[in-house]
Amino acid sequence: MQRVGHSQVLSHTLSKVQFNGGVALVSHLDRIVYLNGSFLKGRDAKISIFDRGLLFADSVYEGLGVLQGRIIDRTMHLQRLKRSLAELQIPNPLSDEAYFAIFDNLIDRNNLDEGFVYLQITRGEADRDYVYSTDLKPNVLAFVQSGPEPGNPVVGRAMQTHLDLRWKRRDIKTTNLLGQVIAKTAADAGGAYEALLIDDEGRITEGGATSFFIVRGGTLIARPVDNLILHGITRQTMLRVAEELGYDVAFRKITLAEALAADEAFITGASSYIEPVVQIDGQSIGDGKPGIYTMALRTRYLEVVRAEL
Amino acid sequence: MQRVGHSQVLSHTLSKVQFNGGVALVSHLDRIVYLNGSFLKGRDAKISIFDRGLLFADSVYEGLGVLQGRIIDRTMHLQRLKRSLAELQIPNPLSDEAYFAIFDNLIDRNNLDEGFVYLQITRGEADRDYVYSTDLKPNVLAFVQSGPEPGNPVVGRAMQTHLDLRWKRRDIKTTNLLGQVIAKTAADAGGAYEALLIDDEGRITEGGATSFFIVRGGTLIARPVDNLILHGITRQTMLRVAEELGYDVAFRKITLAEALAADEAFITGASSYIEPVVQIDGQSIGDGKPGIYTMALRTRYLEVVRAEL
Repeated sequence: MQRVGHSQVLSHTLSKVQFNGGVALVSHLDRIVYLNGSFLKGRDAKISIFDRGLLFADSVYEGLGVLQGRIIDRTMHLQRLKRSLAELQIPNPLSDEAYFAIFDNLIDRNNLDEGFVYLQITRGEADRDYVYSTDLKPNVLAFVQSGPEPGNPVVGRAMQTHLDLRWKRRDIKTTNLLGQVIAKTAADAGGAYEALLIDDEGRITEGGATSFFIVRGGTLIARPVDNLILHGITRQTMLRVAEELGYDVAFRKITLAEALAADEAFITGASSYIEPVVQIDGQSIGDGKPGIYTMALRTRYLEVVRAEL
Repeated sequence: MQRVGHSQVLSHTLSKVQFNGGVALVSHLDRIVYLNGSFLKGRDAKISIFDRGLLFADSVYEGLGVLQGRIIDRTMHLQRLKRSLAELQIPNPLSDEAYFAIFDNLIDRNNLDEGFVYLQITRGEADRDYVYSTDLKPNVLAFVQSGPEPGNPVVGRAMQTHLDLRWKRRDIKTTNLLGQVIAKTAADAGGAYEALLIDDEGRITEGGATSFFIVRGGTLIARPVDNLILHGITRQTMLRVAEELGYDVAFRKITLAEALAADEAFITGASSYIEPVVQIDGQSIGDGKPGIYTMALRTRYLEVVRAEL
């Protein structure tokens, strides 16, 4: 497969290999996936061309981190899913228990140890019309993937800035993801692991598929949540761990200039947990190595979520 | 089917009936559609759940107006399609002649007289990864639909304002359409035919799926095209007709206040041509009836496109 750009030196190439605790997952075509009540091979999982997820990006999703074959923060992910559905007036088609059973089945059938479960719910199928009916039957699909790295190593990540092109309701986790696709592909082409999204005023919103934080003078600085960033589940759990560790936490918007002058920077994501950021647009952050606050947070975060699995 | 809201008195209810010059089109499930080289029934047209159009809204589309069984401005639509594909680095999978053959086949097989052809091209299928490869095989799908009204009557339309939620690259005709879905569903629920999208500064960008114009003191006022509005094909042809009719045309941004104080307002769209707007948020525009500049434009536009079919 010819990729658009080269991956960075900081082991990003590994992230493109399908590993599962050192054992490669089979191709997505041969993996067992879930679609509307059935478990079937990826190659056989097909959906109508009249699905509104395909025609209008009228759908929501969740990505849930899997550690030791179990899902991290699964109740919080379902809470966010239900909020996303409610914001779009898509009826929630399944009970929490039914979702949990799907996740457990997919993890078992694919023998997944570490990685993530992807769940998408579309509004359903109808003749093409922007105006939706509230009585359509949602389509539900889910599959597993490997995490970004096998064996969960600590890697100092490079980020590359990109204008935040996204719509104004980033608090809803929808599949209107082309802005992220463009930014993350540009970052990859530039040798970076992740995109850093910047608004029209030069302030950071978040990463392409991660939340972004800095540490300065011993204080962890987090952008407040609103409709312009996703309310990250790993972010929430990380902040709980930071509190437990006695960190000072300040909530305010962060400019790119501030981030470049920070002592440490890091990103959070459901399947990548907490990762140190050591470079932005080629400039080193702090001393260019994973920061001590970041690494203590990551270590404690993994202890906490392992204990709660 | 239970709809979210009520349709307006101004004959909007008609727009939800599948007509074809007085003859109803069959259900989308029984219509003949196109998918990757095959013509098949809508109910049999299915696409992989790993299609990037479904997962990331990583796809583009066109809607082409059909009049007397022929497509209006088909070359201009394909030019815009190829620009959209190029902006997203999606390879163009077919020749112009192949697209034209698909359109003609769909019109013939479905016996379509008036309505539109919908064409969508996705980047293709792959294991889920924001970063795309440029060598994926695009999926191509197309189907026909009826136009907004049978018999092409002139109806004074009501619009309802909504915050423009969309992303920053509205010049690319992508399926990241949830902002439009929300605005148009709210307009429908409020009894209006179309949404009028307003930016953070109270200026009008465009309609939910149409371009928007006003007439004041005999001058047609059009918002200049940039990355914040779609470059409408019907808009282009309408402006050519306006020039031919000797209209004064000014290109500048339009505030909502200006639109409410205008003598006339109208919208353009591929399958609705030129439609007078007589009400915005319940307030009458001009004398509350279709305007004379608008109606002359519409009449001449239909003459011109009929002659060019």
